[in-house]
Amino acid sequence: MVDVVVVGLVCRDIVMTVDELPASGSVPVGTRIETLGGAANQAVGARQLGLSAGLVGVVGQDTAADLVLDQARRDGIEVSGVVRREGGTTPLVVGVVEADATHRLLEHVPAEALLTPADVRAGAPIVGAARAVVADLQQPDDAVAETVRLGAAAGALVVLDGAPDDPDALADVWDGVSVLRADDDELAAYVGSVPEGTDAVVDAARELVARGPGVVALGAGQAGNVVAWRGGARVFPRLGEEPVDVTGGGDAFVAGLLRALLDGADPETAGWWASAAAALTVTRLGGRPDLDAEAVAREAERAAGR
Amino acid sequence: MVDVVVVGLVCRDIVMTVDELPASGSVPVGTRIETLGGAANQAVGARQLGLSAGLVGVVGQDTAADLVLDQARRDGIEVSGVVRREGGTTPLVVGVVEADATHRLLEHVPAEALLTPADVRAGAPIVGAARAVVADLQQPDDAVAETVRLGAAAGALVVLDGAPDDPDALADVWDGVSVLRADDDELAAYVGSVPEGTDAVVDAARELVARGPGVVALGAGQAGNVVAWRGGARVFPRLGEEPVDVTGGGDAFVAGLLRALLDGADPETAGWWASAAAALTVTRLGGRPDLDAEAVAREAERAAGR
Repeated sequence: MVDVVVVGLVCRDIVMTVDELPASGSVPVGTRIETLGGAANQAVGARQLGLSAGLVGVVGQDTAADLVLDQARRDGIEVSGVVRREGGTTPLVVGVVEADATHRLLEHVPAEALLTPADVRAGAPIVGAARAVVADLQQPDDAVAETVRLGAAAGALVVLDGAPDDPDALADVWDGVSVLRADDDELAAYVGSVPEGTDAVVDAARELVARGPGVVALGAGQAGNVVAWRGGARVFPRLGEEPVDVTGGGDAFVAGLLRALLDGADPETAGWWASAAAALTVTRLGGRPDLDAEAVAREAERAAGR
Repeated sequence: MVDVVVVGLVCRDIVMTVDELPASGSVPVGTRIETLGGAANQAVGARQLGLSAGLVGVVGQDTAADLVLDQARRDGIEVSGVVRREGGTTPLVVGVVEADATHRLLEHVPAEALLTPADVRAGAPIVGAARAVVADLQQPDDAVAETVRLGAAAGALVVLDGAPDDPDALADVWDGVSVLRADDDELAAYVGSVPEGTDAVVDAARELVARGPGVVALGAGQAGNVVAWRGGARVFPRLGEEPVDVTGGGDAFVAGLLRALLDGADPETAGWWASAAAALTVTRLGGRPDLDAEAVAREAERAAGR
């Protein structure tokens, strides 16, 4: 039994810095990082914040699979729910970050590395025993629906992260969603269009809470994030220093939110934890978080008190 | 004893296709290839054209080193001259190719993965016994100078590929250079500026032959390549179909040139072999060649006869 099970993309991340990407031709790379990435970063962040964590996902039978699974084990993450697909290729995300913090993610997720409902059911021993389950919508809608179903049936806090390909695909399991997280550009899938301005995002968050989830956390561009809950909503500004690389900010946000909610904190306090965890991640290169619960708590309290 | 020893970059190549690189954010990757790359592709090409080939270069002690050395061995390449640097990281080149064939190469070559003169001397058993030695100028000038010195002392055909960081760095070993190969943008290091127009490239090639090397092969933009030798020079147009990815065209060109010259062909014939080998490489994704001597010979004869 683990606190948090993340059901989603388990990949190899290669992050590289360049001064500026040329129109064509060669450019030298300054720093290169190669590690575990994808939705797995939510499990890494949860673990760093003192929760136990597990993964359900798909890797290949290549050397990259060894690399990411070894890293996950070193991170103390339960990987018995990760399928090693026969003949498959482990997904790879290459992040390119320019000196002005412009970032691009080149995502290679082979079709055979996507989760199926059967993969999710194979992970039922850990999904069904978790206190919280994160369903990553970068995976096919039917696998996500199966994840929500299993998590809800087990009484877990179910976090839906992202936007479905088909807005109707989750209708049957919508009642099982406890927390909805969507970035700025994913919001249109739920409310028909991208809301303009922070007030419109707050309205959208309140509307989504009225439709079911107890907590809704939405990206709100430069304004930061909006969290709404039954009886309230507020804007959480971006905390900390200027971002070096925004990759992983959303994953760390979810990890911080979960840590606080599983501790029994109210949604407003959880919003500050989430914002603090995101802030401490985006000042580093790559999507991998490097959190500790005390630092996040300190930053969350400082920000909430101001 | 091998026919061709390439002294230069031995790296892992990751090549990825995208429709179009976004200004920022995510983009799905269509095809991904991960294999041996760098100057090593010249050894691969030489081997495919029926020559025996060896490598002198530096890799790390990481899993990527196993990947590239295993591939080189499967290619039938002698790798006893490749140093596995203690604690080092194997170089990585990430190629990104858009649908309109625009290509970018992100080159991560850690300082410890550059060749030193001592590394080259350690490779002397194979460098000193080769019929031809290619010195890759993407490596430090002092290591390149040592390569030319060793190759010339052994009576090998010495190919200098690229441009030095310091134009004076090779003065002492210049007499040992048999063949000079430079791309369009590398030429300025030898003649002071990038020549404008094909006639100016031909003049530059003739001038360089007058300074020492018996054969000079220069990139000439859309016009193709120029090869000059004692007593002659000509433009070799780009052959074959529209390029998919120009990466590796120069390496295949060198492999084709070497195969013909080592066979005793005259420089003009060698220019056609080089052009044919390049043409058969750039219609494929990535820098790795897939040549066979009969196909190259056929294409070279066809092109020479027209």
